[in-house]
Amino acid sequence: MSHVPPVVALLTDFGLDDPYVGQMKAVLASRLPMVRILDLTHGVPVHDILAGAFFLSASLPWLPTGSVAVAVVDPGVGSSRRIVGLSWRGRLVLAPDNGLVSLLLACAAPDAAWAFPVPASAAATFHGRDVFAPLAASLASGVTPGTLGQTIAWDSLHILPGLDPHLDNGLLHCRILHADRFGNLILGLPLDRWRPILDTAPGLTLKTSGAFPLRRVATYAGIPPAALGLLAGSQGYYELAAPCASAAAVTGLGPGHAVTLSFEAPSATRGKTF
Amino acid sequence: MSHVPPVVALLTDFGLDDPYVGQMKAVLASRLPMVRILDLTHGVPVHDILAGAFFLSASLPWLPTGSVAVAVVDPGVGSSRRIVGLSWRGRLVLAPDNGLVSLLLACAAPDAAWAFPVPASAAATFHGRDVFAPLAASLASGVTPGTLGQTIAWDSLHILPGLDPHLDNGLLHCRILHADRFGNLILGLPLDRWRPILDTAPGLTLKTSGAFPLRRVATYAGIPPAALGLLAGSQGYYELAAPCASAAAVTGLGPGHAVTLSFEAPSATRGKTF
Amino acid sequence: MSHVPPVVALLTDFGLDDPYVGQMKAVLASRLPMVRILDLTHGVPVHDILAGAFFLSASLPWLPTGSVAVAVVDPGVGSSRRIVGLSWRGRLVLAPDNGLVSLLLACAAPDAAWAFPVPASAAATFHGRDVFAPLAASLASGVTPGTLGQTIAWDSLHILPGLDPHLDNGLLHCRILHADRFGNLILGLPLDRWRPILDTAPGLTLKTSGAFPLRRVATYAGIPPAALGLLAGSQGYYELAAPCASAAAVTGLGPGHAVTLSFEAPSATRGKTF
Repeated sequence: MSHVPPVVALLTDFGLDDPYVGQMKAVLASRLPMVRILDLTHGVPVHDILAGAFFLSASLPWLPTGSVAVAVVDPGVGSSRRIVGLSWRGRLVLAPDNGLVSLLLACAAPDAAWAFPVPASAAATFHGRDVFAPLAASLASGVTPGTLGQTIAWDSLHILPGLDPHLDNGLLHCRILHADRFGNLILGLPLDRWRPILDTAPGLTLKTSGAFPLRRVATYAGIPPAALGLLAGSQGYYELAAPCASAAAVTGLGPGHAVTLSFEAPSATRGKTF
Repeated sequence: MSHVPPVVALLTDFGLDDPYVGQMKAVLASRLPMVRILDLTHGVPVHDILAGAFFLSASLPWLPTGSVAVAVVDPGVGSSRRIVGLSWRGRLVLAPDNGLVSLLLACAAPDAAWAFPVPASAAATFHGRDVFAPLAASLASGVTPGTLGQTIAWDSLHILPGLDPHLDNGLLHCRILHADRFGNLILGLPLDRWRPILDTAPGLTLKTSGAFPLRRVATYAGIPPAALGLLAGSQGYYELAAPCASAAAVTGLGPGHAVTLSFEAPSATRGKTF
Repeated sequence: MSHVPPVVALLTDFGLDDPYVGQMKAVLASRLPMVRILDLTHGVPVHDILAGAFFLSASLPWLPTGSVAVAVVDPGVGSSRRIVGLSWRGRLVLAPDNGLVSLLLACAAPDAAWAFPVPASAAATFHGRDVFAPLAASLASGVTPGTLGQTIAWDSLHILPGLDPHLDNGLLHCRILHADRFGNLILGLPLDRWRPILDTAPGLTLKTSGAFPLRRVATYAGIPPAALGLLAGSQGYYELAAPCASAAAVTGLGPGHAVTLSFEAPSATRGKTF
């Protein structure tokens, strides 16, 4: 970090229409003038911890090592929920302890975790500006987390329930993590874990109120007209997409929905539950 | 400002879908390569000078001292309205003279004020890019305002009418300044001025078409189910909030609406008009 | 470029609600820590190449010379469409070869053009992050385009059809390029080319399902009540605007629509087709 200024990356559900994100940046710029502020997104749907968890785990690996990422989706702001930090693959993550780091932890254990105190002067309704931003500025300037907070066991962190996909009698059950701007539906099926199953399955059908046969394709442009495509998406998860259309609109599905894929599983894994 | 690059903060009603803000930034980056550009927000509702005035006064104190803030909500662009600058608590503010600095002035008088000329080459419909951005770049680079404009009396600045709350026969009348993304309603009641009254009032009721008893709470999470909370908000004003819901939707109220709070005022202030 | 860090400007249809833009920035910040990232806009309507072409040509001239601009509106991502670069008036532009540079080329020929290969490791669905961002980082760091790609003839670039306005029997036919946040309608009539005709025409009427007499005005504030104004807009094109209202709503017109202006053309140009 010697001569390259540190990155503080922000991920919130504050939107950009209110001045909340601007005030967080103003605090960062006041305390650490050389900071490079990087917006991951502020469009997490209001209070949607699952979407925030997905955005965080999909984006963190792309940040420069040494970055500090601040994730604030925090309906419990000012209540007793903890403010925690994780050291995760060379980045430092700050978040409320409400499940926002669930998908990060599902991907890899952190190297260390801490809980940080809330200064008495903080506005009880805006910890993003009054707690997280000053903390991020200190950490990005090189202060070690252990001098600002207390080491905690990472398995004490809050985890969102019901996120694990499972295979049962040839049916694969999972959740939709997110519908993006293009209407692509991101499934809670990490590529690295489900590729051996899904890429060899002879046929795949999405079962909802109706049934949609799925076409495995490599690109959005490769989906035949009127078909529904299954892609190894860029965010590390499988995705459903429709050709020049919104898969969310075509299927009527959206974030948080439980979905089922039926398929002829390869014989070696038939009936096995993951 | 010797070795720390200057901050130019932007606050507009341009939104982020058009390339207008990008072009302002391009001009700033061309004229002052080392500038740190900080977006306060570009989501002021179209032509909503009151919302812009609120965002500006709530955000300016968080900017680093020495910053230049550019506020553009300017339905009269290209007409005879003045382009003015204020020195306010160590920051420099540029704005059209249409009321956008009303709440700043209600908070504190500026140290000085100037009016700036419009270059003949400016596009008559986009002073943000052609007048404000070049002016901000010059001022942020250290040029003194008096060399670019003319000193004016700050009490000649345009002020939005009807913003002063008043207490009358145990009824407190004020305006709603803003409904944020979460549906929280920001009331035109500055904390520092109304705390002695509101924090000691035995009971409070919001009167609109119906009547909503208010609960004074410290956090959003502390509002009981089905109640409406009154909080000392993070933006320097009192706020109405609903538990995990939109107070705007619950009450049917929105920006600009006049509201009345009824209460048993402490005896010392009963009937007094502020 | 010696001591001033390079600018990489971004223009996409990714929106800001998903983490896609954040991931592009993370890649840029990882590869070129000193880069100045400048958002032109990410609000190009989904897959709307015409709007992207307009935003790009209207914004590029404002960027500092030496900037690299990345434009991604790319429904064909991962298919055989080329990834191209242009040297255009001192800036370098990267885009998919799908018409996105049409209006740039209509304005001026590039100094040179290249096609760039797609690395095998790129996610087939997100070239913005995996192809364009690394390419932009390399070029912004000073690598010459010819070492990364192959020179191509610029007249081999894909051009959107039907964009040329034409004058026929006293009727001027053109397309609406964009409706902005304020409802202003940007017409596909470049100022420099149509000023001699439009600024001298004795009377102008917009013909759609109805007929709207047009008032030539210099500012939005100068449009009389209930009139529709024609302005020399800030984006280099003529614009239709309504007084304190949306011209799009008033006329029922929107992006891509074909419109006709009828007028008494100056006799020298009557009947001439441009």
